[in-house]
Amino acid sequence: MKRVLITGFDPFGGESINPSWEAVCRLPDAIGEIALCKRQIPTVFGAAPAAVLAAAADVRPDAILCVGQAGGRAAVTPEYVGINLCHARIADNAGRKPQDESVVPDGPAAYFSTLPVRRMVEAVLAAGVPCACSYSAGTFVCNEVLYALLHHFRGSGVRVGFIHVPFLPQQVETGQPSLSLESISAALQAAVTVLFDE
Amino acid sequence: MKRVLITGFDPFGGESINPSWEAVCRLPDAIGEIALCKRQIPTVFGAAPAAVLAAAADVRPDAILCVGQAGGRAAVTPEYVGINLCHARIADNAGRKPQDESVVPDGPAAYFSTLPVRRMVEAVLAAGVPCACSYSAGTFVCNEVLYALLHHFRGSGVRVGFIHVPFLPQQVETGQPSLSLESISAALQAAVTVLFDE
Amino acid sequence: MKRVLITGFDPFGGESINPSWEAVCRLPDAIGEIALCKRQIPTVFGAAPAAVLAAAADVRPDAILCVGQAGGRAAVTPEYVGINLCHARIADNAGRKPQDESVVPDGPAAYFSTLPVRRMVEAVLAAGVPCACSYSAGTFVCNEVLYALLHHFRGSGVRVGFIHVPFLPQQVETGQPSLSLESISAALQAAVTVLFDE
Amino acid sequence: MKRVLITGFDPFGGESINPSWEAVCRLPDAIGEIALCKRQIPTVFGAAPAAVLAAAADVRPDAILCVGQAGGRAAVTPEYVGINLCHARIADNAGRKPQDESVVPDGPAAYFSTLPVRRMVEAVLAAGVPCACSYSAGTFVCNEVLYALLHHFRGSGVRVGFIHVPFLPQQVETGQPSLSLESISAALQAAVTVLFDE
Repeated sequence: MKRVLITGFDPFGGESINPSWEAVCRLPDAIGEIALCKRQIPTVFGAAPAAVLAAAADVRPDAILCVGQAGGRAAVTPEYVGINLCHARIADNAGRKPQDESVVPDGPAAYFSTLPVRRMVEAVLAAGVPCACSYSAGTFVCNEVLYALLHHFRGSGVRVGFIHVPFLPQQVETGQPSLSLESISAALQAAVTVLFDE
Repeated sequence: MKRVLITGFDPFGGESINPSWEAVCRLPDAIGEIALCKRQIPTVFGAAPAAVLAAAADVRPDAILCVGQAGGRAAVTPEYVGINLCHARIADNAGRKPQDESVVPDGPAAYFSTLPVRRMVEAVLAAGVPCACSYSAGTFVCNEVLYALLHHFRGSGVRVGFIHVPFLPQQVETGQPSLSLESISAALQAAVTVLFDE
Repeated sequence: MKRVLITGFDPFGGESINPSWEAVCRLPDAIGEIALCKRQIPTVFGAAPAAVLAAAADVRPDAILCVGQAGGRAAVTPEYVGINLCHARIADNAGRKPQDESVVPDGPAAYFSTLPVRRMVEAVLAAGVPCACSYSAGTFVCNEVLYALLHHFRGSGVRVGFIHVPFLPQQVETGQPSLSLESISAALQAAVTVLFDE
Repeated sequence: MKRVLITGFDPFGGESINPSWEAVCRLPDAIGEIALCKRQIPTVFGAAPAAVLAAAADVRPDAILCVGQAGGRAAVTPEYVGINLCHARIADNAGRKPQDESVVPDGPAAYFSTLPVRRMVEAVLAAGVPCACSYSAGTFVCNEVLYALLHHFRGSGVRVGFIHVPFLPQQVETGQPSLSLESISAALQAAVTVLFDE
């Protein structure tokens, strides 16, 4: 039995829900031989990676999959790379808005995800949910979490990755893309299933 | 008990499914006091409105709601108006591609839908599905059906309208918007519920 | 020598400029054998069509081409049809926000533009500017002007039409489409050139 | 007098022109105290970075600014980061389509641009052209050039960066964003002006 720590964020940017946590908290406790440990983490620079690391110390997972909201995207997007940059256009949930700061001072410019990103994309598409590989996790808290975890677990056996998900239908007005909670949940389940594929 | 004739189209434009018929054929046979008579119609100029009129002669509905695919739209869009124009960029399923033809020679430029479009939009949004009123049903078979039916049933008691629905997730690759079949079905059910509201 | 009355709007919706007037006011006074009479009109329901009609009584044009801003569109879009509906999401410049009102009570649902729309699209594309025919002028002041003029000049020899233009680069932040003032001006000149083609 | 090597690509992906070279080749030979050496490079993996390095050996520039086409983008986008990945959906101009290959085997995951990206964005916006910082140069030849140059010139005094530009109006049909050649040229000139700002 493998253990996966899977996280979603609390709402931010004026939204009252966050599709990442709505989908994560409804996942089953196990998918096949993979046990899921679910945690909500705050949309706050510094506090978000700290919360994942604390949970990881508790759970001792084989893999960590963080899930976040990417409003405006039309597809579920596993992230290929995290970069060493925090640069916010809007305030996080603690009111902070870092400009051109490093995640890890003197850290390398980027790390590639250690989850099987291409395999995850194929699996989600096969489940009938729109999906594409993304090469930018942005420069907000989502990217900070991805980079910080990849830095922390570099060289360890713990696999780390991130998936961005679209808005839910009730978050958008008109013209903007969204995906139903059912589709997002199906995508996450399909992705989890292949996390330990070679 | 009211009777509603509700139609979806067959696949066109190189697609192997059409979300309009996928959603319509899965609707229940009745929603509250409203009975649903479902029909698939062909994506063919001339044949499509003829098929709806033939079904209407059989069913004798109180209202007709036609549903069609609008690839690229991110929301369910009840149509406000049908115009007296057929102008195709791609061939219909009979290979026809009319250019600047009338639906009804010497007919008026347009008819407004006789379904309660604003009420339908509110009902779909309340069901948690992205929805917006559209002021253009295009110039392909969908618009032809809407205009032809509004022309035929003008002055009668039969209410006529059209709803466009987005692609399903399996129809899109990346970046393009889509909605799950569950969301589209929920939208149609919510819309049907208010068809006879004043 | 033919006379064309060409109009642009004042800024609205929080913008400090309106690309329609910026482009119109920089046009030459004549293009070939076509004289241009330029007027700015207010983005106000009722006052806008009244201003065009007053100018037309003065100028006695052979054709009227109104130009307006369509923020979010990526191409110059000649409008095919005006509908008998005023329905505003934002207030006009007099603070009015009509909901489901007619432009002309008991008027027909719509009029088709009496300018050669397809020819205009070809001419603009040939000038190297992105252009497409639009089948909805919206339900704000632009559509009101188009419908009101088509109604007023129905059966007369005066040709009437409308062109929507994108935002200028300085109006957008990121990700949103825009066109340079040079491109918009080139588009309008190309369109004017073919206004009297059969 | 500073020397800047500035490059554009040849057309690819079925296009008959490439806006990057169209704009670069029309730039003046000097902007203030900055001399511009212009080169066209091939849209071919491997050959493209080799061509820039050969030109750099000849020109001995103080800075290198490569410009490329990013069809679908609505704004001029200076790139913040190049990643160690070649992954093509379409063939390059030599028919090659690498899948998940490294630019530099065993190189770091990414390098940050050594040009003043934020300053460049401000300067382009001040010139009235839509502009935004991009955090992904993709995984095609553009990104390969950026990464390969940043790797080669790491620790040297030569500054390296990349700017993506939208399609030209004549490359798009409808709905797709584009920018005029005048706007793209103005953007590049504004960016060059601040290349040596601290």
